[in-house]
Amino acid sequence: MQGKGNIIVLGGDGFCGWPTSLRLSREGYNVTIVDNLSRRKIDVELGCQSLTPIETVENRLAAWREVSGRTIEFRNIDIARDYHELRTLLVELQPQTIIHFAEQRAAPYSMKSPKHKRYTVDNNINGTHNVLCALVDAGVDAHLVHLGTMGVYGYGTAGMSIPEGYLNVRVDIKGQEHEIEIPYPPHPGSIYHMTKTLDALLFYYYNKNDGVRITDLHQGVVWGTNTDETLMHPALINRFDYEGDYGTVLNRFLVEAAVGHPLTVYGTGGQTRAFIHIRDTVNCIVLAIQNPPARGERVKIFNQTTETHRVRDLAALVSRLTGAEVRTYINPRNESLENELVVHNEQFLALGLNPITLSEGLLAEVIEVASKYKDRCNLSKIIADSRWRRDIPLDREGTPVTVGTPPVAA
Amino acid sequence: MQGKGNIIVLGGDGFCGWPTSLRLSREGYNVTIVDNLSRRKIDVELGCQSLTPIETVENRLAAWREVSGRTIEFRNIDIARDYHELRTLLVELQPQTIIHFAEQRAAPYSMKSPKHKRYTVDNNINGTHNVLCALVDAGVDAHLVHLGTMGVYGYGTAGMSIPEGYLNVRVDIKGQEHEIEIPYPPHPGSIYHMTKTLDALLFYYYNKNDGVRITDLHQGVVWGTNTDETLMHPALINRFDYEGDYGTVLNRFLVEAAVGHPLTVYGTGGQTRAFIHIRDTVNCIVLAIQNPPARGERVKIFNQTTETHRVRDLAALVSRLTGAEVRTYINPRNESLENELVVHNEQFLALGLNPITLSEGLLAEVIEVASKYKDRCNLSKIIADSRWRRDIPLDREGTPVTVGTPPVAA
Repeated sequence: MQGKGNIIVLGGDGFCGWPTSLRLSREGYNVTIVDNLSRRKIDVELGCQSLTPIETVENRLAAWREVSGRTIEFRNIDIARDYHELRTLLVELQPQTIIHFAEQRAAPYSMKSPKHKRYTVDNNINGTHNVLCALVDAGVDAHLVHLGTMGVYGYGTAGMSIPEGYLNVRVDIKGQEHEIEIPYPPHPGSIYHMTKTLDALLFYYYNKNDGVRITDLHQGVVWGTNTDETLMHPALINRFDYEGDYGTVLNRFLVEAAVGHPLTVYGTGGQTRAFIHIRDTVNCIVLAIQNPPARGERVKIFNQTTETHRVRDLAALVSRLTGAEVRTYINPRNESLENELVVHNEQFLALGLNPITLSEGLLAEVIEVASKYKDRCNLSKIIADSRWRRDIPLDREGTPVTVGTPPVAA
Repeated sequence: MQGKGNIIVLGGDGFCGWPTSLRLSREGYNVTIVDNLSRRKIDVELGCQSLTPIETVENRLAAWREVSGRTIEFRNIDIARDYHELRTLLVELQPQTIIHFAEQRAAPYSMKSPKHKRYTVDNNINGTHNVLCALVDAGVDAHLVHLGTMGVYGYGTAGMSIPEGYLNVRVDIKGQEHEIEIPYPPHPGSIYHMTKTLDALLFYYYNKNDGVRITDLHQGVVWGTNTDETLMHPALINRFDYEGDYGTVLNRFLVEAAVGHPLTVYGTGGQTRAFIHIRDTVNCIVLAIQNPPARGERVKIFNQTTETHRVRDLAALVSRLTGAEVRTYINPRNESLENELVVHNEQFLALGLNPITLSEGLLAEVIEVASKYKDRCNLSKIIADSRWRRDIPLDREGTPVTVGTPPVAA
């Protein structure tokens, strides 16, 4: 056995999992990727693909061996189904850390149809529960690091700044006021987000009953595509999603600008979202691994995000940089038109995170990638065709939306 | 079509579902029972059976036709698996109400092994989610009434009286104190209880996004066995569980007294639990059906319980009535040794519930049933063989426990 210890990266072939796996391998950990390739199969289902050309897992791992001299192992296991394979792997590797990215992670995909809703719930909950159950069953004392989402808090908390997982409240007990700390009340905005709020309760229970050490990272919207490691060889390039289901807002705007499509603002663009660059996703996960909860400590929750922006401000910025047209579309989501968002992230800052925030240089880097691969873009896939409720119309052409117009299904 | 409207009772062959189905049929509703007979199959798995002899579903329904002149329909559907059958049934029946008992409902069973933990999570969450998804998918505007548990609140809330689902708290927003109402923070005590806290989030989301009208009944420990309807014919008799997994505390004591087994108090018996008689379970469900939430109203939550008692006080009461010996066993649960419990139940009282509380007459009635069927009791199945953690020893002989002794795995 070489290096710092064994780490299993569940979902290590995906957009966040892949650059994390490379970075941890480079840092000297023995990395085993567990992935059922579901994200690649969803590309097949959607008739779409990453803007960047993704190599097979075999070729990715061979290229990594070539440039780094290090080996990453790969196991094709469906953690929501193949419980005994997962348990056997835990016993075999005795990992010090398990990083759990292995969930269906797109809100619009989770809302496409009853089939997609049911898949997202079944896959995410059974997957997370199997990991927890197997850890206790196998008696493996690993630190579980889970990628959650800022979306568990909801976006409608009008002015209340979002703490890191726990909320101090005052209640009356026997006529006296007491201050107590409670898990932040969840307010999920989609089936996908709902599954992350269910995950939080699974963590709460297994931590309380079995003492499993868990860190839950409530991540903002990720943008960017490359990291130092994915740039080391063309076969290591990371995914770049731009279509209506998996394309997150800032990356989507940058591709739209590169291919000459109007920037797709849903609703008024008054939604404020929390953001993080993919390089900081990786940096934060390294910090979380290096700072596990103590034995007996409750679930550690970090807000993994570095800045907040209104969607329409991002559209204006990208438009200014590229000359792209901004167009508003009817919002497929059932959410507040406009919201404020003030997020605490002092815990990662205290651990030494030096945030990579929005800069024209970084935006230009992403536009360059997008331009290089723009011929791979399927323009017909850009507009979201999921809707949060059946009575929200699908808007393929763009409809002028006035600030203050109520959403269709509010 | 006859009567007051169509009602589907999911899990209508079980301990609470069966007497509820009979009562609703008698009240004039068209009742369709949906059940996959999982509870009967678990009897097979455990090598155990209801103390009372249960007829086949066919014979039960034939007896009901004979004594009442009314027909209850039956469909064998696994709601966690057979989504399309469930959806088709909803479209066909257009029920005004769906009552959802169809979950694995024993905490000790949910803790028996990894297989039982995983079954409970998979079955309960996919089942509940399928019902919600199918309601929206089929466009059926039914009121969903779900049987939850007082256990979602946890039993460790030291002196805070338990409100009905929602908690008023005071928080700081922009430096000003605001009073807000939040869903009561969940604190589940087992995998089974955890699934009910997950259900609550599914309800919260589907109510918010899709306007599904939902009532969630947080029920206490049920005792008793017969109702007016189950007494109408011997083939209508209700289940009576006494073994370590499904036998709830007061019913278990009454059987133990009847068969000459020591009363099995786990830990110090200082646990305070909320109780309800099976007749009031049925009464409450009728009240919930008759008082659905308004369109646009949030999830309605009732505490379905009529009184609270300490376990050791119940043991003393049964011992006094019957002369049975009380014996303490190591608690297989990971919970507080002693707890207080003050529960609000004003909502059902305001709707006219006239609580049936503990009385010697009612206890004697249950002891009579237990005595009648005592030869069917399998003495080897009385002691719980589930443990909340592997390091809690299995105690088959009984160990003197002193009040104040810390639990093994606290």
